[in-house]
Amino acid sequence: MKKTSLKMAVIGGGSSYTPELLEGLFNRKDTLPVKELWLVDVPMGEEKLNTITALAKRMAAKAQSDMKIYSTMDRAQAIQGADFVITQFRVGGLDARAKDESIPLRHGVIGQETTGPGGYAKALRTIPVILDICREIEATAPDAWLINFTNPAGIITEAIANYTNVKALGLCNVPICIKKDIAKFLGVDASRVQASFMGLNHMSYVYSVTLDGEEILPQIIQAYEHPDEETAKKLEAISDVVWPAPFLKSLGMLTSPYHRYYYRNRFMLEEERESMAKEGSRAMQVKKIEHELFLKYADESLCVKPKELEQRGGAYYSEAAISLVDAIYNDKQEIHTVNIQNRGTITNLPYNAVIETNVLVGACGAIPLRIGQMPTRVAGLVNYVKAYEQLAVRAAVEKSYDVALSAMMANPFIDDYETGKAILDELIEAHSPYLDYLKR
Amino acid sequence: MKKTSLKMAVIGGGSSYTPELLEGLFNRKDTLPVKELWLVDVPMGEEKLNTITALAKRMAAKAQSDMKIYSTMDRAQAIQGADFVITQFRVGGLDARAKDESIPLRHGVIGQETTGPGGYAKALRTIPVILDICREIEATAPDAWLINFTNPAGIITEAIANYTNVKALGLCNVPICIKKDIAKFLGVDASRVQASFMGLNHMSYVYSVTLDGEEILPQIIQAYEHPDEETAKKLEAISDVVWPAPFLKSLGMLTSPYHRYYYRNRFMLEEERESMAKEGSRAMQVKKIEHELFLKYADESLCVKPKELEQRGGAYYSEAAISLVDAIYNDKQEIHTVNIQNRGTITNLPYNAVIETNVLVGACGAIPLRIGQMPTRVAGLVNYVKAYEQLAVRAAVEKSYDVALSAMMANPFIDDYETGKAILDELIEAHSPYLDYLKR
Amino acid sequence: MKKTSLKMAVIGGGSSYTPELLEGLFNRKDTLPVKELWLVDVPMGEEKLNTITALAKRMAAKAQSDMKIYSTMDRAQAIQGADFVITQFRVGGLDARAKDESIPLRHGVIGQETTGPGGYAKALRTIPVILDICREIEATAPDAWLINFTNPAGIITEAIANYTNVKALGLCNVPICIKKDIAKFLGVDASRVQASFMGLNHMSYVYSVTLDGEEILPQIIQAYEHPDEETAKKLEAISDVVWPAPFLKSLGMLTSPYHRYYYRNRFMLEEERESMAKEGSRAMQVKKIEHELFLKYADESLCVKPKELEQRGGAYYSEAAISLVDAIYNDKQEIHTVNIQNRGTITNLPYNAVIETNVLVGACGAIPLRIGQMPTRVAGLVNYVKAYEQLAVRAAVEKSYDVALSAMMANPFIDDYETGKAILDELIEAHSPYLDYLKR
Amino acid sequence: MKKTSLKMAVIGGGSSYTPELLEGLFNRKDTLPVKELWLVDVPMGEEKLNTITALAKRMAAKAQSDMKIYSTMDRAQAIQGADFVITQFRVGGLDARAKDESIPLRHGVIGQETTGPGGYAKALRTIPVILDICREIEATAPDAWLINFTNPAGIITEAIANYTNVKALGLCNVPICIKKDIAKFLGVDASRVQASFMGLNHMSYVYSVTLDGEEILPQIIQAYEHPDEETAKKLEAISDVVWPAPFLKSLGMLTSPYHRYYYRNRFMLEEERESMAKEGSRAMQVKKIEHELFLKYADESLCVKPKELEQRGGAYYSEAAISLVDAIYNDKQEIHTVNIQNRGTITNLPYNAVIETNVLVGACGAIPLRIGQMPTRVAGLVNYVKAYEQLAVRAAVEKSYDVALSAMMANPFIDDYETGKAILDELIEAHSPYLDYLKR
Repeated sequence: MKKTSLKMAVIGGGSSYTPELLEGLFNRKDTLPVKELWLVDVPMGEEKLNTITALAKRMAAKAQSDMKIYSTMDRAQAIQGADFVITQFRVGGLDARAKDESIPLRHGVIGQETTGPGGYAKALRTIPVILDICREIEATAPDAWLINFTNPAGIITEAIANYTNVKALGLCNVPICIKKDIAKFLGVDASRVQASFMGLNHMSYVYSVTLDGEEILPQIIQAYEHPDEETAKKLEAISDVVWPAPFLKSLGMLTSPYHRYYYRNRFMLEEERESMAKEGSRAMQVKKIEHELFLKYADESLCVKPKELEQRGGAYYSEAAISLVDAIYNDKQEIHTVNIQNRGTITNLPYNAVIETNVLVGACGAIPLRIGQMPTRVAGLVNYVKAYEQLAVRAAVEKSYDVALSAMMANPFIDDYETGKAILDELIEAHSPYLDYLKR
Repeated sequence: MKKTSLKMAVIGGGSSYTPELLEGLFNRKDTLPVKELWLVDVPMGEEKLNTITALAKRMAAKAQSDMKIYSTMDRAQAIQGADFVITQFRVGGLDARAKDESIPLRHGVIGQETTGPGGYAKALRTIPVILDICREIEATAPDAWLINFTNPAGIITEAIANYTNVKALGLCNVPICIKKDIAKFLGVDASRVQASFMGLNHMSYVYSVTLDGEEILPQIIQAYEHPDEETAKKLEAISDVVWPAPFLKSLGMLTSPYHRYYYRNRFMLEEERESMAKEGSRAMQVKKIEHELFLKYADESLCVKPKELEQRGGAYYSEAAISLVDAIYNDKQEIHTVNIQNRGTITNLPYNAVIETNVLVGACGAIPLRIGQMPTRVAGLVNYVKAYEQLAVRAAVEKSYDVALSAMMANPFIDDYETGKAILDELIEAHSPYLDYLKR
Repeated sequence: MKKTSLKMAVIGGGSSYTPELLEGLFNRKDTLPVKELWLVDVPMGEEKLNTITALAKRMAAKAQSDMKIYSTMDRAQAIQGADFVITQFRVGGLDARAKDESIPLRHGVIGQETTGPGGYAKALRTIPVILDICREIEATAPDAWLINFTNPAGIITEAIANYTNVKALGLCNVPICIKKDIAKFLGVDASRVQASFMGLNHMSYVYSVTLDGEEILPQIIQAYEHPDEETAKKLEAISDVVWPAPFLKSLGMLTSPYHRYYYRNRFMLEEERESMAKEGSRAMQVKKIEHELFLKYADESLCVKPKELEQRGGAYYSEAAISLVDAIYNDKQEIHTVNIQNRGTITNLPYNAVIETNVLVGACGAIPLRIGQMPTRVAGLVNYVKAYEQLAVRAAVEKSYDVALSAMMANPFIDDYETGKAILDELIEAHSPYLDYLKR
Repeated sequence: MKKTSLKMAVIGGGSSYTPELLEGLFNRKDTLPVKELWLVDVPMGEEKLNTITALAKRMAAKAQSDMKIYSTMDRAQAIQGADFVITQFRVGGLDARAKDESIPLRHGVIGQETTGPGGYAKALRTIPVILDICREIEATAPDAWLINFTNPAGIITEAIANYTNVKALGLCNVPICIKKDIAKFLGVDASRVQASFMGLNHMSYVYSVTLDGEEILPQIIQAYEHPDEETAKKLEAISDVVWPAPFLKSLGMLTSPYHRYYYRNRFMLEEERESMAKEGSRAMQVKKIEHELFLKYADESLCVKPKELEQRGGAYYSEAAISLVDAIYNDKQEIHTVNIQNRGTITNLPYNAVIETNVLVGACGAIPLRIGQMPTRVAGLVNYVKAYEQLAVRAAVEKSYDVALSAMMANPFIDDYETGKAILDELIEAHSPYLDYLKR
């Protein structure tokens, strides 16, 4: 029996992203009866939460929605009996992110929010919290679907899938952005385009692109050969970089923006160094943007999602998340790209690994479309990254410094023990008390 | 670019099933522009072919279709440039089938058209022919889709998938029948029901049934516990037998009708013996039915599919086949159940094995929905049958008596060397010249 | 540091096989310092245990051994601190075996001590006991090696390997007998022959035979073609049957005696029926033999292993068991054939399955020699049997009637639900109280 | 029947290593009847070949060996009918090696003979030659064993195993050196020590060390904690570096010297730069050493292997190679460490991958000891390197620039497309005509 009234809890409700989520909900109010929305945050984020809650209520009124909006710091109460739990929190906030970005960079290593040692530190801070949330879901909302946005989404979903019984899907806006950019490049409506992904979060490859069902990936790769300026700009949008044609030709697939850190590491490192020198860490830039956003949000005349949010980097977030909830609730049997346990989808990755791939979504959840063997030319790197991710999860679950060191040494950006250990030790120190559990 | 005019070749066009195929085509004439239909048969079937062709033309006229209908014994011409090739031929006709049914039975072994030694002999006769057809497709219609109905469909598709480059899907009407019978049992429209299959052709299990997307398989299994008479009849329809509740409870899945030969072998053997004594082989019964059908088909006033065909055993055949062609041509992205290469879909079956499972069908073909590990309680039997099937294909491809003997000994119905070898040798002898290639 | 004094516990010490074990120990007294031997049995076997203990002491005296021999019904005391534990007990004794043999046969199914429903019932009686023993070893002798002889040895070792932390090897005298018979056939000393096994206990195939390191299996198979009478007799000894040459040629390997039940099921069934009619069950025959053996054992003038024991069916038991203990203790780095967890040795069997295969044995235990893919012509049957075995273990561990029924239906001798369920229910009833845990 | 007279061909017979090989042969002349030794080289190496041949004849005389020594540039003649073929050639000589070392280094990437882009270029030069040799062996010496020393030995053996039918083993002196150094550290004879390796050539880990059969690896790792100076020196010898204790503790295994390039990349890069600046490339240093060696070899009074050879880096080469030949010929059933096809030995590496691992060697060849799952903490890196190796082989076999670029991008030392492509293009140019086959 389909429920006629749904309860949704948003952990990290005070996030600047929340208005997009709200917009998505109000847009679908006729087909997706979320009647209770619980916005949860921690004391450190109380002010933001209040601002968001007030905005949410104004948006609800404007949208003529009867959704009840609750604002709380009592996570357990919000989760109890929920049908959907959305997690988008950030342990330690942007200040912690600033450390994730600057500490590795000081050692000559990419400092990045989701990949490399920075993403690793974020994972180590986040896993204990997400596992606590899952214990609460198991106990008081065992039928709930958990949609996780918290980064690094692949690793967090890996922890959930292998250490809890919660029904969860990991989500990222990269795949939907790539699809939209391909549509823009083709000059067609996105609904006519299907892009198929294989790999890991922030490391997935587009191995098929169809237009009205016909395969057109080879033509897209060909387009990189001698693009005019305008085409080049559109092609760049697809992966945040214009890849040289020989690279894509030898790869035979399209990349995610994050592949730059693996295939153009030197260039990115230089860019990061310059940016850090000029503008400080990306976290600090975001902090400024967020500050301005929240000034907007606090404006009592505002009762829709402000346009500026789109520049924040959260494009299509609403579309990805709420359309996934919609597909589950309304048994849509449609294709999404999510993070989910492998179980043979890609035969040359571990059975229990969480991968990012296309799935068919309906009321029973998501089922991956079978892929088979991943090509050798990417299988090495993807296995390398996945091994690091599984070790990262184990380090957090076993609270073991030895495993944490193994994971750091297994990270693709680390090729030197002295460097790896120094970064790890500094991160543990800098992220006290979050990472105290790894102190020996 | 979507083609606006399609050529379809039907190998075995003189089959009594063809009118259903025609009905399916004419029903979809607005969305599926098959402009040329080539009905192909061998000299032995010329008379039937002529009858069918004449009927086809009358049906076309009645349906106001502009489809051109060709009748030929020149298979190569029919295949050349085809978009779809449908194979539904029977090497040796019903007389050969009669031998497949009677020879094993004389040795106290199930004699059956598609399973056991009978189905094995059919496979050995058919594989050389289907591989010849595939060579022609590779050469003159490399983009064509081959939809194979010829039994044993699983083994034939196994041969195609592993020894040719033809894009092929193996089809059977059992899954669609099961789904319809479940809908009938539930008293709902079949469009609200989804049944998920895993295993092999004539050996696939229903591991999930959803109604409007909600899982209801446990409730269906429960219904077997104490059904009233009417319910029992409906439940029987699902698998051609009322399974005792403890059996289904321990299995946790529904079966195909052919599972009777594996789980109720003694009973079926007894039944076959009695039936053979009373009415002769099933082939001979079918021959009579076919004779009457063709009398009908020859009636010049007939210009639709006659109702009697449905009793022939070909129910939903049209729906399965033509809706598959439709899904490919019109990029429908819908779920079908087909025979297709495994490649990790079920991780405890060989990577290259052809399996029967649910797939998402669109213009690029069919992609299985990932299953993962098959439960141990069926993995043994399914692997056993698949090993036999792979040996059967090898025997035909390598034209080796030794491998043929291995395959016979690997067949689940054979547990005795003397019996197995005697049946094999008799079948080779009886099916001369088709199986002469196995003579030492 | 190598220990200079070893404690060995023999569970089922009152077995008629024990004298062979003793002989093996005394023969190696200079290199294998077993200083304490604990013979353990249950009250039901007390009389036999006393007879054996007395004989053991006379044998020790004769062998001028300083080994201390203890006789006890306190299993825990015997196990505590042991270096080697040998298990050769029989839950329910020969009376239970008689039921295992007769009940299936009454239903037209092979009744056999280790395979089929009979072996299954034995497994169900034994697994709870062996797991209890393993708990004791884990607690009080965690470094001990468990050498298991108790049948069905493959299933029992499967239970140990997957549900305990005990270091265990499963042993059977079939492989060593086959090797000796091959040597006899070749007319050479067994030390020059190496036979390589792959598969499961009582279902392993000889895939390689070397004489002085050179492969000679093809020549042996050729010998089956037109053997003279004497050669035929020697060939029969290899697998207890003269296989027709075409069978072995198509198989390309040699078989174990137990393959008769799978490849000559009808013949064996007939033979069993006649034997049962004429001489009663094999258990009853053995009971008579045992009675006579124990009369011998009780003879106070006897102080060596009596020759008659060899006819009991325990040939080379001593050699297999004690030479394995010897290889471990003395780090011999020599090849044995044992039951051990797969872990990739045979890639088309489950990773955690216990298999029978050649291993290199030294102080750290046993490591299998890598095999890779098992040929398709046997992979089906072996996977079939292994699935049954894993279900049998689960039935006992989970104490679940549903799983027990699944296991029965997965047994290769059962192709009919009514028969399978009837046999299972009768066995549960007949083996009360041992199988009461499966009563619903 | 064991042959009483063996023919051995040494491809690259003019190598400075050959005297050690000769010493090994003469030391075993009583048990290993190599009666014909064919030293083969290319015209470029004729002078060296002559020097070696003359020395070989003096050594034979001194050793009172009746071995016939042939010197030829006709490779086919040398291979025809050979029992053992040893390959130790170097395509392009030391001048090519100098380029392999300097070109990557100029781009800030490790320049090394066997790993990284340098080893890759060497593989690309060598694979076409080794495949030619294998074609000759297949045609005229199909029963011969090929023992390959040519570096990168892992990749070369990968090519042989996957693209030829030759019986081959890849050999490296690293494992035997590690074992000897462990024995030295322990202060015991090497015969009492067993070291077990898993991984790839120049990337294998020691996962077990036994002394008299007892596991002592944990104690060795512990020794790294606070070693005194002398101990540290001995520990350094084991992997050419004193690893910090936390590193080894988190790894739980010992490394090969080549792991420095992966785990201390920055340090090694700095070291290479300094060394290049001071002393030129390693190739040029070796050239000087070789020059002096050949002056020695040419000394007509020399009739034994000169001591200086050991400093060349070829320590235990003779022991590894000739003892392997000895183990095969004399069916020794002893443990060696070789490069061989995986086939399930390590389940989380591709089935067809060549790995470096312990094998049991006898007259039928080598069989790996089963390992199972490789630990996650090394599985990522090892899969990464293996994928690169398999792509390297494919690039050479398919003669494809695209695949060559894929392989370069898959190399662990390359994290930047611009750098990778530049190095590849320079290497192709510099190694003309050897790599002309990759020019577009």
